[in-house]
Amino acid sequence: MLERKGSILSVREDIKVFDCTIRDGGLVNNYQFSDEFVKAHYEACVASGVDYMEIGKNVSPTIMSEDEYGPWNFCKEEDIRRIVGENNTDMKIAVMSDIGRSLKEELRPKEESVVDMIRIATYIHQLPAAIELIEDAHAKGYETTVNVMAISKSFDDELTEVLNQLAQTPVDVIYIADSFGSFYPEQIVKLTEKYLKIAEASGKKIGIHAHNNLQLAYANTIEAMTYGASFLDVTVSGLGRGAGNCPMELLIGFLKNPKYKLMPILKFIEEFIVPLEKELDWGYSIPYMLTGQLNEHPRPAMKARDEKNTEYREFYRDLLKE
Amino acid sequence: MLERKGSILSVREDIKVFDCTIRDGGLVNNYQFSDEFVKAHYEACVASGVDYMEIGKNVSPTIMSEDEYGPWNFCKEEDIRRIVGENNTDMKIAVMSDIGRSLKEELRPKEESVVDMIRIATYIHQLPAAIELIEDAHAKGYETTVNVMAISKSFDDELTEVLNQLAQTPVDVIYIADSFGSFYPEQIVKLTEKYLKIAEASGKKIGIHAHNNLQLAYANTIEAMTYGASFLDVTVSGLGRGAGNCPMELLIGFLKNPKYKLMPILKFIEEFIVPLEKELDWGYSIPYMLTGQLNEHPRPAMKARDEKNTEYREFYRDLLKE
Repeated sequence: MLERKGSILSVREDIKVFDCTIRDGGLVNNYQFSDEFVKAHYEACVASGVDYMEIGKNVSPTIMSEDEYGPWNFCKEEDIRRIVGENNTDMKIAVMSDIGRSLKEELRPKEESVVDMIRIATYIHQLPAAIELIEDAHAKGYETTVNVMAISKSFDDELTEVLNQLAQTPVDVIYIADSFGSFYPEQIVKLTEKYLKIAEASGKKIGIHAHNNLQLAYANTIEAMTYGASFLDVTVSGLGRGAGNCPMELLIGFLKNPKYKLMPILKFIEEFIVPLEKELDWGYSIPYMLTGQLNEHPRPAMKARDEKNTEYREFYRDLLKE
Repeated sequence: MLERKGSILSVREDIKVFDCTIRDGGLVNNYQFSDEFVKAHYEACVASGVDYMEIGKNVSPTIMSEDEYGPWNFCKEEDIRRIVGENNTDMKIAVMSDIGRSLKEELRPKEESVVDMIRIATYIHQLPAAIELIEDAHAKGYETTVNVMAISKSFDDELTEVLNQLAQTPVDVIYIADSFGSFYPEQIVKLTEKYLKIAEASGKKIGIHAHNNLQLAYANTIEAMTYGASFLDVTVSGLGRGAGNCPMELLIGFLKNPKYKLMPILKFIEEFIVPLEKELDWGYSIPYMLTGQLNEHPRPAMKARDEKNTEYREFYRDLLKE
């Protein structure tokens, strides 16, 4: 069994607070954030000591429509620079690549970009394509992570094989992604042990990306951290698809490193999240709980929320039928 | 270090799902629930396999006003029987006693009451009075529990002394009560170990009553359960003072004992909680998070929510001043 790393009062220098508010939040509003919103968010992250900010996805405009999706679905260099300038801060900028939607031909070399890190999100069946993107981004000078999605549906030996293959790549961080928000803390401990064993042998770090379907996003994040995960994904007020993510303000309130500050996040929440809550729907609710408990994609729950459907028994019966 | 009891798939016959929706929820609306609401809730609990239902407090009408508070603050025998009749079900009925507000002279013998259990809530400084109530209720034939409140403010050796004194009483269950919603799972594990060591030696059970200030009520409940707590306090949709409690629907969805059923709870939520959410305010929010992180009583956060105050920075600065 794994040892806990550090105590509840210790400062662990390996911890990285990773903000993905714009990227995961963009799934709620098709990346239609105003520049004012993204700029204020960027400044809040810098002021609060966040280590990385993921500003969106680098989907190719040849594949998804710029009429339908806002700029943060594409993350053109000029759009990012309009917000962060040269980003002369201690915070690094990340962008997420989707397999089949992000094209390596469109990724410029690191020295021509203000972006520091490329995060590759992949399903298990897309692994060879993900490895191509990892190798390309690494060769171009970026830090890289890989988020293997939907692992709660995979077999253990299949996941082992995936991790062994990723250990051979130059990727810097391998993420435990709880795509359906269905994992319990004791399962997260076992996953952390499994990931860490393979990753540490090849000099990589482990990250955790949790969802809040069972009100466990924060608990699972600190559990993974306690047992050795160091890249911790959060979003302000949990803004993100479906039941949302681990709230940044909870994690910052827990970490003892004095570099992290709560006040700038509270400012951003006051000024930008309070009004947004009247427009957009995200966060824990009964339909997300039900898809989480059944280890299913939140898609039907998103539909129920869109339709303001509170006929929970019928919703549950339909889920059980599938 | 403690061993985990059972696995994620096992059925533990010692587990008791303890509903306190009306009692803790009554703190939100001064116990002004309609009979229709309480009756539907009672029926939902019976149908879902809940083991105990706490229907309110037995405060003396000589101490608090029946004009201001509804019937579930007083729990007169005739009011309870109007809902549960003779309670010819497998579910037991509990009532909470407050030190200084519940009078042992007013507690009738068990054979004259449909109530099965008296739960005594006490602060540490009230312990002798609590022990008097425990002994009286036990002598009159009731099961008893004691919830020692605000232990996150107590010294460890003081808490040890409290537990040792309680071990000498006839109380059946000793509760870990996270009154300020400020405990993290790893602290809950240590508390469970501490309580269990003393309680098991004297043949008592351990319970957990969590609050959701840090979105950890459910995580802390399953953590305490995993390490041996067996009485698990929940409320439907977390209804309860401030940030609320561990949601019953999350726990029932986790437990593998087929006697527990989710559908009747979903029915009650559809019909009674969805409308109530438009009238009453409870559950996780930034002010409750801040009092939880600072290990303070939620009182100022309750005031901020009442006033719909979202000036979170000022609220936080005021808390830090106190």
